[in-house]
Amino acid sequence: MESLLVIKIGGNIIDDDQKLAAFLDEFASVAGRKILVHGGGKLATKLAAQLGVEQQMIDGRRITDIETLRIVTMVYAGYVNKNIVASLQNLGIDAIGLCGADGNLIKAHKRNHPTIDYGFVGDVDDINVSLLQTLLEKNISVVVAPITHDAKGQLLNTNADTIAQEIAKSLSKKYLVQLIYSFEKSGVLRNVEDENSVIKQIDSTSYKKLKADQTIFAGMIPKLDNAFTALQSGVKKVIIGKAEELKNLIEGYAGTTIIDE
Amino acid sequence: MESLLVIKIGGNIIDDDQKLAAFLDEFASVAGRKILVHGGGKLATKLAAQLGVEQQMIDGRRITDIETLRIVTMVYAGYVNKNIVASLQNLGIDAIGLCGADGNLIKAHKRNHPTIDYGFVGDVDDINVSLLQTLLEKNISVVVAPITHDAKGQLLNTNADTIAQEIAKSLSKKYLVQLIYSFEKSGVLRNVEDENSVIKQIDSTSYKKLKADQTIFAGMIPKLDNAFTALQSGVKKVIIGKAEELKNLIEGYAGTTIIDE
Repeated sequence: MESLLVIKIGGNIIDDDQKLAAFLDEFASVAGRKILVHGGGKLATKLAAQLGVEQQMIDGRRITDIETLRIVTMVYAGYVNKNIVASLQNLGIDAIGLCGADGNLIKAHKRNHPTIDYGFVGDVDDINVSLLQTLLEKNISVVVAPITHDAKGQLLNTNADTIAQEIAKSLSKKYLVQLIYSFEKSGVLRNVEDENSVIKQIDSTSYKKLKADQTIFAGMIPKLDNAFTALQSGVKKVIIGKAEELKNLIEGYAGTTIIDE
Repeated sequence: MESLLVIKIGGNIIDDDQKLAAFLDEFASVAGRKILVHGGGKLATKLAAQLGVEQQMIDGRRITDIETLRIVTMVYAGYVNKNIVASLQNLGIDAIGLCGADGNLIKAHKRNHPTIDYGFVGDVDDINVSLLQTLLEKNISVVVAPITHDAKGQLLNTNADTIAQEIAKSLSKKYLVQLIYSFEKSGVLRNVEDENSVIKQIDSTSYKKLKADQTIFAGMIPKLDNAFTALQSGVKKVIIGKAEELKNLIEGYAGTTIIDE
């Protein structure tokens, strides 16, 4: 089987032109088939403030009313996605930017939560594997914005970490998939204040311990849960680390590697 | 050769939810391979006003400073493009929304005008015919936003009528192409006040006369110039007419047909 990289790039990188450029340079220089999933960073929050659209967050998740959906669609699927694609084209990478509605790439349903109304937030049902394969086989790198659709005409705001995991899983029958969560930190840290405290490897046993003693907490938990779900569904390897060190992450010289044992 | 429809939909339709829905219903019900090119309507102007970004127009063309480029990228390639795609998916059409940077679909260069600085406005150099063919042959309808790139990392705002014409021309060696300019009017009108005064057919001789006696003026002139350029480059037929009557336009029961003689 051929190798495939599914790389998620975090919001704090998107917000920083220099870090984004450094990341895209690394992305462009990595050989082989690859998919990039991006978040939207604080640009959507900033635009919402400029437009006087109040933002409500619950547990780090944005409540997406209709005005906020309009904003994230513009920022994620428009501004961020197209600028990344244009930069990659300049770096010699034939990239194509898609959201989940495009070619029915990601079908989702509106979240139905017993107590919280998340608004127009989507949970993923299906990935269009054949569309991704067609593009990958033409040496096109797909750049995915975290907007999905319900196939009934409704766009939905969807967590980019989850999209990366779902795409990685769905392609693991056709490719040897490595899933990389890249962001502003050097990896999963033993001490969040210390960038030199990267935990080199986490398996399911050590994960339980790290959660129990609260070394790992908050936003890192859903990321790691996503990682283990991916591994249990056929993804070869999950790596978490700094976006600007992408090549070192892939080669195992940096970041945290998650393994399922 | 197989048939292909390249359909441009005008701004006033995009601005009107009901007209847009009626148009998309017609678009979905037309059989065969098709490409949709859309403008952005007044949504960009409205967003610019909300954000306090002043808009300057010269001869109906928007001067695109960097802030305006950001806005049109968000509105055209994000909001408008993705909502059209989601609606078409709901209507059973496998649509994919692209801007010119995606897969290097439309390479352009920044306009270099002797007296007017149009800002980040692009004039088209090249269409990626092979990408369009790949998608069309998979029965995917491509929905094109009027944002191009210079292949050096710069996005550019580009006239949607021109994009439709360039796409139609570029595909006319592979397909029997019909180019349709659809908008809020019933066709080219003898009397702009009278929707029943549609000129059924215009050829290059009658066009000269209609321009000379000022029956045709203003914004209709670049549209017709585009039409004749397309016909001279291998496009089979150009039709101008009302978006909600798309099927009648294609079947010759409505609108103005432009022929090159």
